[in-house]
Amino acid sequence: MEKERFFKGLRAVFNPSSVAVVGASEKPAKLGFHVMKSLTRGGYEGAIIPINPSSTEVMGIKAYPSLTEYPGTPDMAIIVVPAAHVASVLAECGKKSVKGVVLITAGFKEIDDPSGALLQKEVALLADSLSIPVIGPNTFGIVNLHARLNASFTPEFSLVRAGGVTLVSQSGGISHLLGFLAMKQGIGMAKIIGLGNRLNVDFADLLPFLAEDEETGAIALYIEGLDNPRPLLEEAKKLLGRKPVIAYKSGAGTRGDAASRSHTGSLAGRGEIYDGALHQACIVTVKSPQALLDAARVLASCPGLKMNTVAILTGQAGPGMAASDVCETEGMKIAVFSTQTQEKINALLPPLAMRTNPVDMGPAWYDARAIEGIVRAALDDEAVGGALILMMFASANRDVLPRIKDFFLEWKQKKPVITCFSAPEGIWDEDIRILEEAGAIVNFPTPERAASAMSVLGRYKTLTLMPFWGTTKDENHSHPSQPLG
Amino acid sequence: MEKERFFKGLRAVFNPSSVAVVGASEKPAKLGFHVMKSLTRGGYEGAIIPINPSSTEVMGIKAYPSLTEYPGTPDMAIIVVPAAHVASVLAECGKKSVKGVVLITAGFKEIDDPSGALLQKEVALLADSLSIPVIGPNTFGIVNLHARLNASFTPEFSLVRAGGVTLVSQSGGISHLLGFLAMKQGIGMAKIIGLGNRLNVDFADLLPFLAEDEETGAIALYIEGLDNPRPLLEEAKKLLGRKPVIAYKSGAGTRGDAASRSHTGSLAGRGEIYDGALHQACIVTVKSPQALLDAARVLASCPGLKMNTVAILTGQAGPGMAASDVCETEGMKIAVFSTQTQEKINALLPPLAMRTNPVDMGPAWYDARAIEGIVRAALDDEAVGGALILMMFASANRDVLPRIKDFFLEWKQKKPVITCFSAPEGIWDEDIRILEEAGAIVNFPTPERAASAMSVLGRYKTLTLMPFWGTTKDENHSHPSQPLG
Repeated sequence: MEKERFFKGLRAVFNPSSVAVVGASEKPAKLGFHVMKSLTRGGYEGAIIPINPSSTEVMGIKAYPSLTEYPGTPDMAIIVVPAAHVASVLAECGKKSVKGVVLITAGFKEIDDPSGALLQKEVALLADSLSIPVIGPNTFGIVNLHARLNASFTPEFSLVRAGGVTLVSQSGGISHLLGFLAMKQGIGMAKIIGLGNRLNVDFADLLPFLAEDEETGAIALYIEGLDNPRPLLEEAKKLLGRKPVIAYKSGAGTRGDAASRSHTGSLAGRGEIYDGALHQACIVTVKSPQALLDAARVLASCPGLKMNTVAILTGQAGPGMAASDVCETEGMKIAVFSTQTQEKINALLPPLAMRTNPVDMGPAWYDARAIEGIVRAALDDEAVGGALILMMFASANRDVLPRIKDFFLEWKQKKPVITCFSAPEGIWDEDIRILEEAGAIVNFPTPERAASAMSVLGRYKTLTLMPFWGTTKDENHSHPSQPLG
Repeated sequence: MEKERFFKGLRAVFNPSSVAVVGASEKPAKLGFHVMKSLTRGGYEGAIIPINPSSTEVMGIKAYPSLTEYPGTPDMAIIVVPAAHVASVLAECGKKSVKGVVLITAGFKEIDDPSGALLQKEVALLADSLSIPVIGPNTFGIVNLHARLNASFTPEFSLVRAGGVTLVSQSGGISHLLGFLAMKQGIGMAKIIGLGNRLNVDFADLLPFLAEDEETGAIALYIEGLDNPRPLLEEAKKLLGRKPVIAYKSGAGTRGDAASRSHTGSLAGRGEIYDGALHQACIVTVKSPQALLDAARVLASCPGLKMNTVAILTGQAGPGMAASDVCETEGMKIAVFSTQTQEKINALLPPLAMRTNPVDMGPAWYDARAIEGIVRAALDDEAVGGALILMMFASANRDVLPRIKDFFLEWKQKKPVITCFSAPEGIWDEDIRILEEAGAIVNFPTPERAASAMSVLGRYKTLTLMPFWGTTKDENHSHPSQPLG
């Protein structure tokens, strides 16, 4: 499919002026009911066109028996009819000049019966001949939080805050998991995209599109297995320096492999091989769903590290040690302060404290000015790439964060500041929210997650400094040219 | 100190009939103010006796100028006066037959000045001669949630739910972190104990006491460094089969080491040496603060595993793969179902699904009876030690959990059932709460934490099967007889 037409189709999928729901229903046992709920309650402001042969109205909206009988041209169509009807609906989409499709229906390549794969092939050929990008089949759908478009069978996705993380996922379960975590953790997302069986839209096809998407700050990939990893690796490499790409690849174990085979019909492949190939493509890899969200969040929110070194400033020694352990394990260097910085810090802390990096600010915890002075001295130091600041609330130091808030707001975006400010509910929540929404800090509930997120920034920095694999003629040397299996 | 007297003292510390606060204050800048707030607002029902030379009343409670001038005998005393006065207050405690002390005051062994260590030695000799166990100095205090006793400077600790996890910690910061996490995650705790500088109450002294404590289901240790690890290792070993002990040892890295030296005045030691020694003492080790809480939680709540094998039953393939990866990495075996079990499951799922362990219950997700049947078949299988059940909510399957709730309540406590049931706020919260409070499941927000917690049960099971190190004459061979440094 020609690139401009394909991109136009994807733009229609994510920012449609009108959406037809083929298979819209008022019966809660039907997915077409849940899709209608998502669309109508999510705040989408374009036209919604329910298509149902036996209803004149769905959820109070005029319905049409078929796409053909609708007088206008829907920009995008969501298809939720049984698999056997998909080809004819897609043909109608072609006749109606529908630009893009989200195909939720299951029963294609993922089923044991070979008829499923055959059907998928047939539908893919049709979609390609019509030049229609089709997300799916066998997907929950897609969500564009900035457009308030919830084209999925899960209305609750609309509750996620709009932000910079775009998730492209091979698993509906992982998408739901991460969507709900984002919701509960207040993490902003741009798009949630369920690839399903990847009819003609795969990871590789979305990367250049998302590279140009202004709402996407970082791209998180959940990968189970790839038939042909090369296009993804090629496209990811092109994004280096433009937009961070992070991947969590499951199925490292043998059982996971088997699971993936039956789930998506593709090989999961051994974890290490994937890791190597993904790194060569400048993709940051992580080891769990929560880590994928955390990594994408900091890469979407924080300014880039100028160097791979961190100042650990902690209100209490223990959390600083926990963070320090994670940084060392994950390859993030503890900065060595300049003499000048060290002198400034020494002047603000009694000799009893640990004053070299990590700095135990504990003895100054009643004194917000001293803490501000320490943080400022560390961040001013040219040897410091970013700061991890850990502060546990105790009744006696509850005033500290409100008092140093303005400093962080002023410091905003010069260097990454990742924090673990922890307090009982209601105590620092509002201050943390203000600081996060201003982009001044990214806060995590534990020192280990904060440190791990900082280490992700470090690993991304390292990738940007890597010799650029595969730009020479000798491409096959650095790229797997076979499917990773 | 003689054991019976020591235990009596600890019982007074954790379940006092009356508590004197030496250094009670109405000035918010004083720790004595926060301690009084903790005691008075935490729901403690015994007598509170503020001691302050210049007040006749603190927070509406009659105060006395000194312990001596108080006519009765306080069961326990919390001391928050400056370091220089501690010895004389402790002497008064002796005269008054106070049974146990929580010494919050800092300025002892942890300071650079050698006078601190000297003062601590002097006070320790005094405490020993008076046969008074002293928690601290340089601690936030202790909390006994079952007695509603908050003997700390952080009133918010009283908000933690009473439950089975007891934390013994060398860091106030980690205690606050974990207390707040427990609060937000609804995890029940028995006691939160800040060891501080360990005047005459160390990890090893608390283990036999906590072994007999009916409210403590599992003992979580946060360790930075030990001058003499042997007593802890000896005591931990005695608890095997009686009560699980879990440790998170920070300072594995070199920086952490340096931090620990200045923080608690003891050597942190290399991570691997500690890990080996702790395993030999039948202590389960974990690698982060959150993992310590998670591990203690499942060991306090779940029935023991009969064998180190797990059934992974998942509503969506992706989360099952993520869980499966963690189990394999952390040494938990994926169970092989019996033919009978497999046939039962096959009958409940279409052939398109992955039906061997891990089982993708996705195709049955509208059908609560089928899901119940699969879970029952797996749990009935003798080859299955415990079950990991992962289920992400989507609008179409919101009825599943409420419908299978009764099954879990009935199954309760026969085998461990650890879940990741994930839904937007308000959707399954109440069902999950009921199941957790009944002890039927332990729920985690991510599949990786659920799987890691199950693996902890597996590792504990493995420890119970280990040849019992050090019961032979050749003890020095298996135990480090030198401080781990």
